[in-house]
Amino acid sequence: MRFPARSRIVEVAPRDGLQSLPRMLSTDDKVWLIDTLSDLGFHTIEVTGFVSPRAIPNLADADEVMARIRRRPGTLYRGLAPNVRGAGRALAAGCDEIVGLVTASESYTGRNQNMTLQAAFDQALASHRVVEAAGRQFVLAIGMAFFCPYEGAIPEERVLQLVDRAWSAGVRSLYLAGSLGLEHPREVGERFGRIRDRWPGLDLGFHVHDLAGMAPANILCALEAGVDWFETAICGIGGGVATPSATGNYPTEDLVRLFADCGVDCGLDARAVMLASRQVAQRLGWPLNSAAGRFGDRLENLVTRAG
Amino acid sequence: MRFPARSRIVEVAPRDGLQSLPRMLSTDDKVWLIDTLSDLGFHTIEVTGFVSPRAIPNLADADEVMARIRRRPGTLYRGLAPNVRGAGRALAAGCDEIVGLVTASESYTGRNQNMTLQAAFDQALASHRVVEAAGRQFVLAIGMAFFCPYEGAIPEERVLQLVDRAWSAGVRSLYLAGSLGLEHPREVGERFGRIRDRWPGLDLGFHVHDLAGMAPANILCALEAGVDWFETAICGIGGGVATPSATGNYPTEDLVRLFADCGVDCGLDARAVMLASRQVAQRLGWPLNSAAGRFGDRLENLVTRAG
Repeated sequence: MRFPARSRIVEVAPRDGLQSLPRMLSTDDKVWLIDTLSDLGFHTIEVTGFVSPRAIPNLADADEVMARIRRRPGTLYRGLAPNVRGAGRALAAGCDEIVGLVTASESYTGRNQNMTLQAAFDQALASHRVVEAAGRQFVLAIGMAFFCPYEGAIPEERVLQLVDRAWSAGVRSLYLAGSLGLEHPREVGERFGRIRDRWPGLDLGFHVHDLAGMAPANILCALEAGVDWFETAICGIGGGVATPSATGNYPTEDLVRLFADCGVDCGLDARAVMLASRQVAQRLGWPLNSAAGRFGDRLENLVTRAG
Repeated sequence: MRFPARSRIVEVAPRDGLQSLPRMLSTDDKVWLIDTLSDLGFHTIEVTGFVSPRAIPNLADADEVMARIRRRPGTLYRGLAPNVRGAGRALAAGCDEIVGLVTASESYTGRNQNMTLQAAFDQALASHRVVEAAGRQFVLAIGMAFFCPYEGAIPEERVLQLVDRAWSAGVRSLYLAGSLGLEHPREVGERFGRIRDRWPGLDLGFHVHDLAGMAPANILCALEAGVDWFETAICGIGGGVATPSATGNYPTEDLVRLFADCGVDCGLDARAVMLASRQVAQRLGWPLNSAAGRFGDRLENLVTRAG
């Protein structure tokens, strides 16, 4: 296994994590969370989403959050925009990067977005044009890229077609998301490897979920296949199909540890991120379900002579 | 990442798992557990240990357990023997394979076995000679092969020296154990790769713990480095330095799932092992902490039209 010298981490707890939190979080807590993450030195932080407050009440204060956070030079602040209207709001709020969403599942898109995959794709591309015209960065998220609870395994060819259409429309940055966390190492490595080979100029990410407990292995295979960045959430904040403590997003503190141990430089200090994860869990009342958060690192597990 | 066509799994719950269980298990439950595992078709099952009943009360019925289990043709039944006396008992009880233990940590050996590493090694080699003379198989376990809570990181060179001495003494089968579960993918891959290169004729195993949550990644790196077999426990049964529900041995049902998903044939059916893990958890009152046991497979997470 070859490990690259460096990689990037996009922290998604403030948007993708909080979006499915069962309770409302105060704007103060959100600003505190994002400022804490900024202090750690993340490359990119997904701050909020510019969506209907009725659809996602926990993101209703998107503009206020963007206005109140401290912006660290060197960190990109990303907003989610489901459509052109959201993209416009995200641009006005000062987001450096805007993410648009499609899924690789016709059934899921129909049930969750009440539209066809084609319509969802067109909407994302419309956002892309608006964002590009404004000179900001656009990222396309492709959800359900491996397995869909309605359709089962998603064929690789369907994902490659979506990437091809996005590339042809000028999209140069996109990520695949497992969404459920039932993807497995071999298909992760093969799918990303195929995309890497066909579009070497694409900035390519992997949004990591972990229902099946295979995330560390999936990450290694994606890393080896040439994925440029990984999306995770501190404390694994985010919803899942089963219990909120065990599924949802893969914990950032575990990924930073994995990178540090394997010599992959992501510009973050593993110990600082681990300690921050404990503060975040305590302040937000979120269970500390990461291995790093719960059990600490080697230093914490060393029995000293005095001990 | 290249995946081998096949690998082997040694199921260690009945000995290594139960050894540190906080409560006593009845002989009936142990026999039921081992028979259940035999029915699944494991290559090897570590049935019990021939140790002092005072030291490990949960293994006091070793002879009775060996006498009462159903022996499935094709499965090897392994016993642990800490010394020549134990090896003699294991042979008399009819074990196919006998495992002797050393660790790569002088401090740990001193504190836990109250002897020097040299003395522990000599004892294991004495067992090896007895077992070989009887025409049975001997396996050497090297514990604390990556990190020791008293000594910190264990240098690779020390592990290579132990392997060298074992090989010179005629040992042809051995495994490395992390013991604490704080080993990480890069060192796992490199250490096993070095051993594989120097001793291609060695039958080489990896006993998987998972405190740091990196086991799936460690397993991939070990697999790629040419490790021949993996040791895990159904339901992750076994003690750890923190809570019993989260550390200890890596769950067999998760490894079997990983192998099945990646096309590695280990002679076991992932769905059957997953369903058995739920039965075992229920009968033994052990928390179902494996991803496979808790969240099921893709089939269980598929929303059918009727659902």
